[in-house]
Amino acid sequence: MDDIIHKGLKRKVVIVGAGLVGSTYAYSLSQSGLADEIVLIDRNEELVKGQVLDLVHGEAFVPTVSIREGSSEDYADAQLIVITAGSAQKPGETRLQLLKKNADIVGSIAGEVSRQGSKGVMLIVSNPVDVMTWVALKSSGWERGRVIGSGTVLDSARFRYLLAKHCGIDVHNVHAYILGEHGDSEFAAWSMTNVAGMVIDNYCPVCKKCSDWKSERTIIEQQVRESAYHIINAKGATHFAVGLAMVRITAAILRKQNSVMTVSVFLNGEFGLRDVCLSVPSIVTNTGVTRVIAGPLSDQEMKSLRHSAGIIKEAIDSL
Amino acid sequence: MDDIIHKGLKRKVVIVGAGLVGSTYAYSLSQSGLADEIVLIDRNEELVKGQVLDLVHGEAFVPTVSIREGSSEDYADAQLIVITAGSAQKPGETRLQLLKKNADIVGSIAGEVSRQGSKGVMLIVSNPVDVMTWVALKSSGWERGRVIGSGTVLDSARFRYLLAKHCGIDVHNVHAYILGEHGDSEFAAWSMTNVAGMVIDNYCPVCKKCSDWKSERTIIEQQVRESAYHIINAKGATHFAVGLAMVRITAAILRKQNSVMTVSVFLNGEFGLRDVCLSVPSIVTNTGVTRVIAGPLSDQEMKSLRHSAGIIKEAIDSL
Amino acid sequence: MDDIIHKGLKRKVVIVGAGLVGSTYAYSLSQSGLADEIVLIDRNEELVKGQVLDLVHGEAFVPTVSIREGSSEDYADAQLIVITAGSAQKPGETRLQLLKKNADIVGSIAGEVSRQGSKGVMLIVSNPVDVMTWVALKSSGWERGRVIGSGTVLDSARFRYLLAKHCGIDVHNVHAYILGEHGDSEFAAWSMTNVAGMVIDNYCPVCKKCSDWKSERTIIEQQVRESAYHIINAKGATHFAVGLAMVRITAAILRKQNSVMTVSVFLNGEFGLRDVCLSVPSIVTNTGVTRVIAGPLSDQEMKSLRHSAGIIKEAIDSL
Amino acid sequence: MDDIIHKGLKRKVVIVGAGLVGSTYAYSLSQSGLADEIVLIDRNEELVKGQVLDLVHGEAFVPTVSIREGSSEDYADAQLIVITAGSAQKPGETRLQLLKKNADIVGSIAGEVSRQGSKGVMLIVSNPVDVMTWVALKSSGWERGRVIGSGTVLDSARFRYLLAKHCGIDVHNVHAYILGEHGDSEFAAWSMTNVAGMVIDNYCPVCKKCSDWKSERTIIEQQVRESAYHIINAKGATHFAVGLAMVRITAAILRKQNSVMTVSVFLNGEFGLRDVCLSVPSIVTNTGVTRVIAGPLSDQEMKSLRHSAGIIKEAIDSL
Repeated sequence: MDDIIHKGLKRKVVIVGAGLVGSTYAYSLSQSGLADEIVLIDRNEELVKGQVLDLVHGEAFVPTVSIREGSSEDYADAQLIVITAGSAQKPGETRLQLLKKNADIVGSIAGEVSRQGSKGVMLIVSNPVDVMTWVALKSSGWERGRVIGSGTVLDSARFRYLLAKHCGIDVHNVHAYILGEHGDSEFAAWSMTNVAGMVIDNYCPVCKKCSDWKSERTIIEQQVRESAYHIINAKGATHFAVGLAMVRITAAILRKQNSVMTVSVFLNGEFGLRDVCLSVPSIVTNTGVTRVIAGPLSDQEMKSLRHSAGIIKEAIDSL
Repeated sequence: MDDIIHKGLKRKVVIVGAGLVGSTYAYSLSQSGLADEIVLIDRNEELVKGQVLDLVHGEAFVPTVSIREGSSEDYADAQLIVITAGSAQKPGETRLQLLKKNADIVGSIAGEVSRQGSKGVMLIVSNPVDVMTWVALKSSGWERGRVIGSGTVLDSARFRYLLAKHCGIDVHNVHAYILGEHGDSEFAAWSMTNVAGMVIDNYCPVCKKCSDWKSERTIIEQQVRESAYHIINAKGATHFAVGLAMVRITAAILRKQNSVMTVSVFLNGEFGLRDVCLSVPSIVTNTGVTRVIAGPLSDQEMKSLRHSAGIIKEAIDSL
Repeated sequence: MDDIIHKGLKRKVVIVGAGLVGSTYAYSLSQSGLADEIVLIDRNEELVKGQVLDLVHGEAFVPTVSIREGSSEDYADAQLIVITAGSAQKPGETRLQLLKKNADIVGSIAGEVSRQGSKGVMLIVSNPVDVMTWVALKSSGWERGRVIGSGTVLDSARFRYLLAKHCGIDVHNVHAYILGEHGDSEFAAWSMTNVAGMVIDNYCPVCKKCSDWKSERTIIEQQVRESAYHIINAKGATHFAVGLAMVRITAAILRKQNSVMTVSVFLNGEFGLRDVCLSVPSIVTNTGVTRVIAGPLSDQEMKSLRHSAGIIKEAIDSL
Repeated sequence: MDDIIHKGLKRKVVIVGAGLVGSTYAYSLSQSGLADEIVLIDRNEELVKGQVLDLVHGEAFVPTVSIREGSSEDYADAQLIVITAGSAQKPGETRLQLLKKNADIVGSIAGEVSRQGSKGVMLIVSNPVDVMTWVALKSSGWERGRVIGSGTVLDSARFRYLLAKHCGIDVHNVHAYILGEHGDSEFAAWSMTNVAGMVIDNYCPVCKKCSDWKSERTIIEQQVRESAYHIINAKGATHFAVGLAMVRITAAILRKQNSVMTVSVFLNGEFGLRDVCLSVPSIVTNTGVTRVIAGPLSDQEMKSLRHSAGIIKEAIDSL
């Protein structure tokens, strides 16, 4: 009984960068049953070996999956390549020096993915994610839909959690997006926020749970923006929720879901913006982003989006 | 090692009526991992034995669950009692005669559930479900939130499927409700329909996938209404999707989800309606419905809701 | 953003025969999240349309999946083709006439699958499954590992359920196989039966829950054999557990699991048997059966296996 | 609609110790859908706040669950209290000093759990786990079955992974246990090791994949024992696989599974051992361990078990 090769069948995900974020994502992904094969790559061979060992020891407890260490040759037949690699700020290093260093790292990986002839999608998670998505896209030479960033998928989840808790409604019935930069200039698209099937402007007067929902909204939006800082202060890094956000994006790609998500994507005129990557609602499926949904935003939201775009462009130009 | 009894822990669901709908629900529920214990009750002892056998033979393939035949004593410590029992129309029997017969069956079961001192929730699935929910509520003497009907949860899912397919977007990103009677007078709440975070009136002009979305909407709403007839003509009964809709409601109850769903619920002044059960968005959790969300509807939608209520009331009055 | 085709990625399953077994399998499969695409084919167009409608209406409640009606062209890029088609016995029809009719149906489908250039695996469920697996294999011209029958996977699950219940141990910790024909001559491989890590001959003396475990075993083995009859008498057909058994086999194929299962497979000298399909423990993965595990059986078990093989061969020869 | 309280229903898990192991377990548990409520407790308020934030931000991506910070009052109605708290070795501190310090920590928590009137089960994960399980049991005053240690559940999973990989068979078809101390004196129960339904002594001669399976076995057993060291050297700590092992034990308790697992349990004469906690196959369900399965071991295995027991007893006596 020869082994007939079903090359195409592989639900193979390659993760570049085996640090806390990359490995936590691999962990959640293994539990999800989405992937057949999870491959970790890292320049730190000791680290990647340790992460793989800690992951494979859990194989008996999750749906069947093959987890292993890999090399750049694994890009060729992977359906998804996830880049989490990047350097942390060193003492005496300026923000710009760090940005350039990480752009080199991400650009070099993206270039290699492209050279290996991959037919898959690249998901960039390295920060600052919008800049790094732009870098990876340029280095790959791919069309824009195939190189996406994790963007504000996590931020939108934080937003939904805070709204759901405040309103006393299951988070799965609260639909809301954080748009723009994955960073300080991000903003809540209140005009697209729905609770229990109603635009939030209609819901609040019906709900009446809080006396001053306008000020509550400001507080919630602020909390979303500051979330990461609180966690980093408390424990040095965020990794759990971002791991799940990455699995969510992965599902859309591996299962051809046509999901709407605020991934970071290269804009080509949508919202009057060009040559910049940032998060707006987009349709994500097995081939990456197939459509940017350029729906109407309020004037304030459009202003915030342009502001975010300006900040990201400045960083791109500084490279 | 004595057996310490954790009475309260039981995630126990009792299903009354082991026909195609009741058994298909039990089947999906066993696959979901939600319940610890699934108990089937039916007056046809042969049938219930057969269904239980066919279900337990699958236990090796699903998360651990105990499935068995039961009796009315099982109501006492069940978290959820699901009533699917009811008679089918016999030749020569009028619709009204059938209605009265089924009201007797459902009322008698609900009364017995109450007498057994159950602290759980009752989910009515027997048709016509809005009338039967009213009957069960009255027979139980329970407060209104604890006796709910499956209502238009299935119809809303049909609506979402048709919209998702038409729009080329994952069904999980399309949020929409069918309200009113689970029957011919049901209607789509277009004002509460959201696609990709946008009210559909905003989405269609952005999407531009179809040339005449106003007439498309009429067609879709019509298809939802006729869905059951098509399936019944083709294969005699609908059971698959309704089984999953019931599992969805079950999750909200067993997991204390505060989910928003269009279950059938007794109205007590909401939307200007009283003493009738029908489907409007409500918050469902471990104690049943804790809140009816009486959000603003369009004039046309309010008219349709009152029309639906009138039809159901007429049936109730005929009992 | 052009659509880059990831042909190979498809986790596509085609089901031939949309009756109760085929549709219930599709239903469970949709809940499992294993497949991206589920295609139903049936000569009864009305029936297949009804089943598909009842299935798609549940899409909002399950992981993203595309379910639709198909045609023989769908075989080409499917990873798995499941054949459940077959005729039921008509009054006045002999068993042999029925056998020949179903062999014609299954053989014709298998031939067409082959002609469409499928690179996938065929799973035969039509009864008598061992004979039909042989027919499909011959009609396809494929190598033996790619055409397998559901065999005694369901019977083994029934056996495990009964053992687990008797022993008071979770069914997932009871490992046991029913071998031979999926039919009256099947038998329990007691020598391969393990409870809590122990061969059952060692477990029973330690457990001491029952006074006469030798007679208990005879009863349990008998119950396994008679299970289907009980269910068919009670409700006309078995479909729930068989649907889950099929999903279990599907998982092994779609996820490349190298699972050990008692599928029906063509023997080529293993256990001294040739040119017959029956159930023995085999390794199942994305390419079908890659290895028959011809482990030592007791003399009694070998005798039963040869007896089963004889009965199946006789049926094959009668074609 | 008053809130009827279903006190008993809570699938509530309290985790004491919000370090890497405790939080990773909470993370996996949230993904599993098993618990309704996950409560974290830690003396480091900053840390626990950070972990909870990082976990709740993922709520949109997992089945509905409530995750929050708690206090000792949460023990009262929890179904499961998981103790992962403990100090790491400080420079200049002897192993014995560390042991005493951790015994104080664990003993004090267990005492408080008991004082709060909990009716649940305690799962001890703090190391050395066998000693800490003994300490917690004594401090609680509970009957032995309700205080269990994670023991060698993880080690058994590592063993199964290595066997599965070596044999080319899905890990879910390889059944094997590591017994004794969770530590250097642990050993493989080869006599209870089953591959594809066969005792491994029967399987190897049939499989023939490796030329010298006796020496392979020694290597594999050695690798299991050294696994943790390799991971700790590489990345400072193990947390992924242990988190999943803990979820596996949790499932057995929350779902009343009667699962067979090698948890650490107080022996009361089984295997001729008394007044010591170590890992042997036991039946675990909602009330904890209901039965120790004292099956026959080989002479060598019995010798290893007694050796392990001696080492643990020595540590207990040193307290």
